[in-house]
Amino acid sequence: MNFLEERILKDGIVKPGNVLKVDSFLNHQMDIALMEEIGREFKRRFADKNITKVLTIEASGIGIAAFVAKEFNVPMVFAKKTKSINIDGELYVAEVESFTHKNKNHVIVSKKFLHEDEHVLIIDDFLANGCALQGLISIVESAKAVVEGCGIVIEKGFQYGGRAVRNMGYPVESLAIIDAMDADNGTITFREQN
Amino acid sequence: MNFLEERILKDGIVKPGNVLKVDSFLNHQMDIALMEEIGREFKRRFADKNITKVLTIEASGIGIAAFVAKEFNVPMVFAKKTKSINIDGELYVAEVESFTHKNKNHVIVSKKFLHEDEHVLIIDDFLANGCALQGLISIVESAKAVVEGCGIVIEKGFQYGGRAVRNMGYPVESLAIIDAMDADNGTITFREQN
Repeated sequence: MNFLEERILKDGIVKPGNVLKVDSFLNHQMDIALMEEIGREFKRRFADKNITKVLTIEASGIGIAAFVAKEFNVPMVFAKKTKSINIDGELYVAEVESFTHKNKNHVIVSKKFLHEDEHVLIIDDFLANGCALQGLISIVESAKAVVEGCGIVIEKGFQYGGRAVRNMGYPVESLAIIDAMDADNGTITFREQN
Repeated sequence: MNFLEERILKDGIVKPGNVLKVDSFLNHQMDIALMEEIGREFKRRFADKNITKVLTIEASGIGIAAFVAKEFNVPMVFAKKTKSINIDGELYVAEVESFTHKNKNHVIVSKKFLHEDEHVLIIDDFLANGCALQGLISIVESAKAVVEGCGIVIEKGFQYGGRAVRNMGYPVESLAIIDAMDADNGTITFREQN
């Protein structure tokens, strides 16, 4: 078991409906030492890639992606979920459905911050049905930039998002892949990874 | 002029309606080295405080607050703007009006992550009318925790938020206070600070 799987077993809480609460260390309260360790681990996993930008989506991806970007010494861009009056000019747009909030959002990135031929590492906290990740990929593709990889903190391996994105040919590294959860007895089964 | 004021003059763009766009380095694309410098500067300004937690509000506060929390070696909590089905149990709630988005949000923090007698440093990217900051302060007060200070990256000194919060007796440190902006010629006037 790696450091993240250990932390999930220690502090994650399994709820009915395949909900995993990690709000004590990842997506409401953040353990900064853990964020730094996550940043170093993604740097290790994508060490052979010439990353020029880290891309994530607000809100809970931001803290993680910031420490990944620090390791690669590149800027981080976070996609926004609604059109803000403070964002003008040309935008890349994708439509994304939220599993958590049961609604659809337009996800936007200003064209100023994603250029042709950039080498992008996409980071997010969760991968389940893959809608958010596919939205970010489509934005990078729209910019004619290169998706060098996708770094996910927790993948719900029993949902189809990870398989779909890997089948599209994009490298996906998930620090923990959950194959099963049981809310009755609180057990979590991780997929074996090399 | 300090490092942030210099950066605002270099890369900030003044738009009509007293809008300052800093999306190339602060709240859409993030310059991580700048975030680290902001973290160190808030650590210096609140060095005499025994901070146990950093509190901010999603989304653009998260990246900044993470690096502040790293300097203080404490957890960071980000308040959320809508009730998520992944947050259950008891919540602290405040109502906040957004200047940018012209709407009202409920801002929530789980009671699990803010305890009586904690010493909280509140961090945000902008202070204008002060609604977001006052919402965060009321949440800390509801928890019977102590607001040790408020660290703001950019304060619009010509709006009343900063004065209101200082008049309430809370220490506010703003890395840049803008007293005037002129969209016609792009000038920005910073308040002199010691």
